[in-house]
Amino acid sequence: MPDYAQPDVDVPALTALLDGKYAEIRQLVRKNLAEHAGILDDAVAMSREQYRERVLEVVRWMAGTGATGLGFPTEYDGGGDIGASIAAFETLGFGDLSVLTKVGVQFGLFGGAILQLGSKHHHDDYLADLVKADLLGCFAMTETGHGSNVQALGTTATYDRETDEFVVHTPDDISRKDYIGNAAQHAHAGVVFAQLVIDDHSEGVHAFVVPMRDRESGELLDGVRVEDDGAKIGLNGVDNGRIWFDSVRIPRSNLLNRYADVVDGRYTSPIDNADRRFFTTLGTLIQGRVSVGGAGINASKVALAVAIKYANMRRQFGSPEGDREELLLDYGMHQRRLLPLLARTYALHFAQEILLGELHNVLSTTEAPDRQRRALESRAAGTKALGTWHASHTIQECREACGGAGYLMANRFGALRADTDVFTTFEGDNHILLQLVAKGLLTDYSSSFGELDQLGMVRFVAELAVETVIERTSAHKLLERIKDVLPGGDDDWDQEAGLLDPEYQLAMFRFREEHILSGVARRLKRGIDSGLDAVDVFSRVQDHVIAAGRAHVERLVLEAFVEKTRLMIDSDNKVALNLLCDLFALSTIEADRAWWMEHGRLTSQRSKAITREVSSLCRKVRPIAEDLADAFGVSEEMLHAELLTGPDAHQSKA
Amino acid sequence: MPDYAQPDVDVPALTALLDGKYAEIRQLVRKNLAEHAGILDDAVAMSREQYRERVLEVVRWMAGTGATGLGFPTEYDGGGDIGASIAAFETLGFGDLSVLTKVGVQFGLFGGAILQLGSKHHHDDYLADLVKADLLGCFAMTETGHGSNVQALGTTATYDRETDEFVVHTPDDISRKDYIGNAAQHAHAGVVFAQLVIDDHSEGVHAFVVPMRDRESGELLDGVRVEDDGAKIGLNGVDNGRIWFDSVRIPRSNLLNRYADVVDGRYTSPIDNADRRFFTTLGTLIQGRVSVGGAGINASKVALAVAIKYANMRRQFGSPEGDREELLLDYGMHQRRLLPLLARTYALHFAQEILLGELHNVLSTTEAPDRQRRALESRAAGTKALGTWHASHTIQECREACGGAGYLMANRFGALRADTDVFTTFEGDNHILLQLVAKGLLTDYSSSFGELDQLGMVRFVAELAVETVIERTSAHKLLERIKDVLPGGDDDWDQEAGLLDPEYQLAMFRFREEHILSGVARRLKRGIDSGLDAVDVFSRVQDHVIAAGRAHVERLVLEAFVEKTRLMIDSDNKVALNLLCDLFALSTIEADRAWWMEHGRLTSQRSKAITREVSSLCRKVRPIAEDLADAFGVSEEMLHAELLTGPDAHQSKA
Repeated sequence: MPDYAQPDVDVPALTALLDGKYAEIRQLVRKNLAEHAGILDDAVAMSREQYRERVLEVVRWMAGTGATGLGFPTEYDGGGDIGASIAAFETLGFGDLSVLTKVGVQFGLFGGAILQLGSKHHHDDYLADLVKADLLGCFAMTETGHGSNVQALGTTATYDRETDEFVVHTPDDISRKDYIGNAAQHAHAGVVFAQLVIDDHSEGVHAFVVPMRDRESGELLDGVRVEDDGAKIGLNGVDNGRIWFDSVRIPRSNLLNRYADVVDGRYTSPIDNADRRFFTTLGTLIQGRVSVGGAGINASKVALAVAIKYANMRRQFGSPEGDREELLLDYGMHQRRLLPLLARTYALHFAQEILLGELHNVLSTTEAPDRQRRALESRAAGTKALGTWHASHTIQECREACGGAGYLMANRFGALRADTDVFTTFEGDNHILLQLVAKGLLTDYSSSFGELDQLGMVRFVAELAVETVIERTSAHKLLERIKDVLPGGDDDWDQEAGLLDPEYQLAMFRFREEHILSGVARRLKRGIDSGLDAVDVFSRVQDHVIAAGRAHVERLVLEAFVEKTRLMIDSDNKVALNLLCDLFALSTIEADRAWWMEHGRLTSQRSKAITREVSSLCRKVRPIAEDLADAFGVSEEMLHAELLTGPDAHQSKA
Repeated sequence: MPDYAQPDVDVPALTALLDGKYAEIRQLVRKNLAEHAGILDDAVAMSREQYRERVLEVVRWMAGTGATGLGFPTEYDGGGDIGASIAAFETLGFGDLSVLTKVGVQFGLFGGAILQLGSKHHHDDYLADLVKADLLGCFAMTETGHGSNVQALGTTATYDRETDEFVVHTPDDISRKDYIGNAAQHAHAGVVFAQLVIDDHSEGVHAFVVPMRDRESGELLDGVRVEDDGAKIGLNGVDNGRIWFDSVRIPRSNLLNRYADVVDGRYTSPIDNADRRFFTTLGTLIQGRVSVGGAGINASKVALAVAIKYANMRRQFGSPEGDREELLLDYGMHQRRLLPLLARTYALHFAQEILLGELHNVLSTTEAPDRQRRALESRAAGTKALGTWHASHTIQECREACGGAGYLMANRFGALRADTDVFTTFEGDNHILLQLVAKGLLTDYSSSFGELDQLGMVRFVAELAVETVIERTSAHKLLERIKDVLPGGDDDWDQEAGLLDPEYQLAMFRFREEHILSGVARRLKRGIDSGLDAVDVFSRVQDHVIAAGRAHVERLVLEAFVEKTRLMIDSDNKVALNLLCDLFALSTIEADRAWWMEHGRLTSQRSKAITREVSSLCRKVRPIAEDLADAFGVSEEMLHAELLTGPDAHQSKA
């Protein structure tokens, strides 16, 4: 059992632990951000046009430092380290998020697609220039009428045998590319996703490099029409736009042909199944999702650092008799609002660290096994969903916890909140992503997984016996680990010690995951058996599907946190992280305690005990809360919080 | 039992029901808003300076239509009808919210303070001019170091016997007035809250009219210093600022002297107790809270109308075989996200209607009994908290439900979300307001209520026997109505009919309220008895205190909805509202079902049945959802949603 005496946090050591393997890279990016901290003010003061140019300037400057090209091969002036590139990107989450997003579009999406989907000749043609940010590009996937349903894109790239070219065309307005970052003003070229049509037949969606603007003059090329998406809730330093292609001709070699090609006038691919090929192509999005999730988690750290520091200096309601004035953070409700979010931020950080390692491994080998790749896709999707929802929620709570001051743009909440808001829908809508996670679980990442849309999944599951589905799910493997760990009644159990036992907490998370998942399998089957069509069955089971995805990812997050602390040598920092880990586990159980009660795994007595324990843990974390927030290593320039230096703060500290 | 056959909603009749007594006024405001709809675009396109002037222009124009002066006596060109004035204000919630806020500051806060706290000579001096918006004013209460704790304000108004004047002074930077709307640019005068000091003794906080700018030139007067609060998350059409007073002299008669005066050099008041006097003065905030709550509820309607209409036209994931494409609103998860929010919006609307009626009655009589006034204050505080949190949550969910399109400022979510964000903290932080509600309940609105700060409340409750507290609470009166209505087990009970019985639903809400409240009393007492000091006791019980306030207000909201539908004659609209009322009641129980399980009022079986019933109610509401949203009467100009007329909508409707 950890010792719950009040630990004395060693902040630099904790920062080193959080920064992990890529500490140096993260420090470089922190330095970069501090050097361009002025952009945080510019973002508020400048017109949209000026701000966009300012962001581009910073992105180009950063490219010069080498911090944005880490994921590209060294022969093209990259760093040759995918993990490092994501670590650098995540750390940009401490700074202006338009810069982060523009970096993501240019190097992650545009550059990443060319790297992952292209061949050597594409690399030779584009990578060196794009790593320097001389060649600017966009990632033109989403269309106005087709958001999450990429398979149904309307844009066509029709092979013209005569000229050995593709003709890229936008057939109607719902097929215009939309919300495309870098498109409205800066992109010289786009990686465009379109139906590859050959001999009047579509071979499905493929990616093509399409030049858009003259690299000297910046003028749009013939046949390319662009419209500005205009003002957005946030990220106004990024020029999002719509694109129409009017029969634009590109050489055949502009098809990014790693997984499919047109050779001698015939379509060929090393992957036989068209759906599977499509999902392999989409796999390039993994990196984007890992990046966005990490950025969301880091943006949360900034908000928490400001709100916790403020709550630890601001006094409220001095009693008229003049006896002691309480700090905001001394209030039980204030602790309840902020500290479980602090714990969850740590938990997500460690889960993200594992994800990053796995991503690095999979993308650094030539060919990772399909199943491993799919499992990674799933983990990336789920962590992105939880990380970005966490960001929205945390930043909002922090802004409210700072009252009126939190509403001023002189403090960072406004920009953080508005900029991260779209994280929950971009690189895949979070609900859809959790469905993806559940599908993976239901099919145990079998090769047939990729081919299934949601109706396909319903039919697939319905054709199997429920037992078969459950046996095939990875959740099934959890069952044995749950047995005997979850006590039934309350009599023979030391309640307080029990609640703080990681094995108990993990067993609770595992039980929930397994149970919801097998419930989904049963409901799908029962629905089909009762004669409903697949559409209706899916609609009715959808919230359970999403709950299954969420339960799975939360289990992974808790495992990551438990594992991290278990490996630490005994120290005050270990004690502090154990407190946080307990707070994360129990506040998560508390939030969904109704579910465990409904399923016989919590008595009402123990449920109430958990609530008490969460409050008690908050009181224990309270004295070290500011240290724990400091350990995130958000520089003063990035906190950029007038409220931490204003007259009320000044008076309070005195 | 209501007939759950599919009702056919009569939209105009439902709009008339919602508009109620003040239908004509609401129509006038709708017309006004539509006439100036251009401001919704200006808000995005204009610089902050231009936008502020534009808002002022619209406010002045509206003043000319008579829609903003309804709450003032007719002899000053007002409408003489407080209820009508709030109805008009609420309806502004459909439009640009900077206009609404500027109207609120000028007519509700500045004008309202002069009307409620001043005497006839103040009315004669100011009201006619301010009703025309010729005299512009601000409400200078909040200080940088003193937000919710108004009693501790630092600004002083010292009586100078020699000259029969007050000297208004800002002693230090934490006592500067802050976040004051209309202060940075437009206010000619302010109602300034300051410690009234006479003979070196403070008589507590009082309100004074202090001239700030020359009415001709707009120049600041001597001794008044103003700083702009700068850019904010939203409401950038309102000029918020900070004010310092450097020994500014004002005539004695500028004290708003309804409840206290200085006569012949001596301080006098009809209210003996200083604390009570202070809280009576603060009572002028009631109107502001009722207004903000109503505005939040109406802003939610705009967001829901857009999101529901969009979900009812946007198709997603057409199956590859080309069979039917689902509308977003056909998805169970999408129904779950939007329809309980629709139900809660209706519920809050009807609760607000009752509140508005009570406010009108209390403020229209010369002197309402103290207790009635306090009960109204409490209801206003609680409805404001629930209404504004609902707005934040609903608008955010609606924006996410519209995906990337929801992120563009061409659609209204961005402005709605950013502008309403501060509603949760202004006119009183929502958490503090719910504490106020709980305090009222614990003391049964006794006259001693007003005098209590939170520590005072702890001591007050601790001095009584728990039984006494519980007997004194209004919750106690609920107990008898609960008895026999809540069935214990599941055996002898028709579950489906039972869950949909309003008496069952109400009994559940009442039981929760009573139980949490008596738990608070017990915990406060136990804490003090165990030797903790009042500060620690309050900190530990604070979340229960807030939960008690919330449970109370939710009960009032459900009662309002049930009562409203009960009074309707049989009709399809009644059937529709009964569906919504059930959905509100059961989704609210579902959200907090853990609590009822923990307290023996829900078996796990019945808890699961409630979840099933909520999903089933969502499916029943789904076909009439757009009609129910249309009935809010948000004009097309105010929906202002590009996504409802864009190419994807067009295609989907075809």
